[in-house]
Amino acid sequence: MRWDALSKETCSVARAVSVIGDRWTLLILRDCFLRVRRFEVFQDRLGITRHILADRLRKLVKSGVLARAQYQSRPRRYEYRLTPKGLDLHPVLMSLVHWGDLHMAGRNGRPVLHRHTRCAHDFDPVLACSECGEAVTAKDVRVRPGPGASSDILPKELSS
Amino acid sequence: MRWDALSKETCSVARAVSVIGDRWTLLILRDCFLRVRRFEVFQDRLGITRHILADRLRKLVKSGVLARAQYQSRPRRYEYRLTPKGLDLHPVLMSLVHWGDLHMAGRNGRPVLHRHTRCAHDFDPVLACSECGEAVTAKDVRVRPGPGASSDILPKELSS
Repeated sequence: MRWDALSKETCSVARAVSVIGDRWTLLILRDCFLRVRRFEVFQDRLGITRHILADRLRKLVKSGVLARAQYQSRPRRYEYRLTPKGLDLHPVLMSLVHWGDLHMAGRNGRPVLHRHTRCAHDFDPVLACSECGEAVTAKDVRVRPGPGASSDILPKELSS
Repeated sequence: MRWDALSKETCSVARAVSVIGDRWTLLILRDCFLRVRRFEVFQDRLGITRHILADRLRKLVKSGVLARAQYQSRPRRYEYRLTPKGLDLHPVLMSLVHWGDLHMAGRNGRPVLHRHTRCAHDFDPVLACSECGEAVTAKDVRVRPGPGASSDILPKELSS
């Protein structure tokens, strides 16, 4: 499969990955959730070239994840804000943070603490079921083809 | 920042991305959660070269996400299984699936349905707080430096 064919795959993971499955894009999105909005701040924090950063920001705007808005007129300057579609990526980023905290933190422990302002406690993200509210693990999930499935979406053993 | 320096960054997202922030790696992991274990099945489903697939599988084994186990002796054949570290990526993959379902599914709807076997309902993943059990949105989260923080882990406005 060619990479630029991914967005046309039926699978939702493939389509999501076609937008955010890039190392720098994921780090740009991390900074967006830390309320970074300006080109120079992204660049300073990520240490990547202007060219790569501009390319990734342009793609995120094109895919509707970020919106570009002018904040200064002389000279013209723009900032980048998460759209509702972009804000919906929060669980992806929180899950990535948590996995990194669990398995890759150094001996000093986790680098960033997250507080849930509604209950005022530091928390870990838990993946819960929308129907019963309980935590979901991989072993508790069964998949089957949905209305938008293609014939090859699932491995043979699972597709009946 | 050079890409191979990412795993030495303090940030948990950067460290996680250094392992899984690759388009093909994310699709391999998707298939692992669909219980695909054999090289030929991965290759058939992903349509990538043997070289790329072997490289990504080797890296996932090296980082402790997959374990390689012999399942046949003549000729020798190996399969790849998620380790506990790999199984902990389930929330990342489920969050990616759900975002793709929400924002990128075609007109026929979602390609795969997920059933929570404990409550026997089709479900969507919800990111919940480990302390109060309520759903968490980006607006409900405040961050601050943790014990493993470096001085530049958060943007200036957030690091005090």
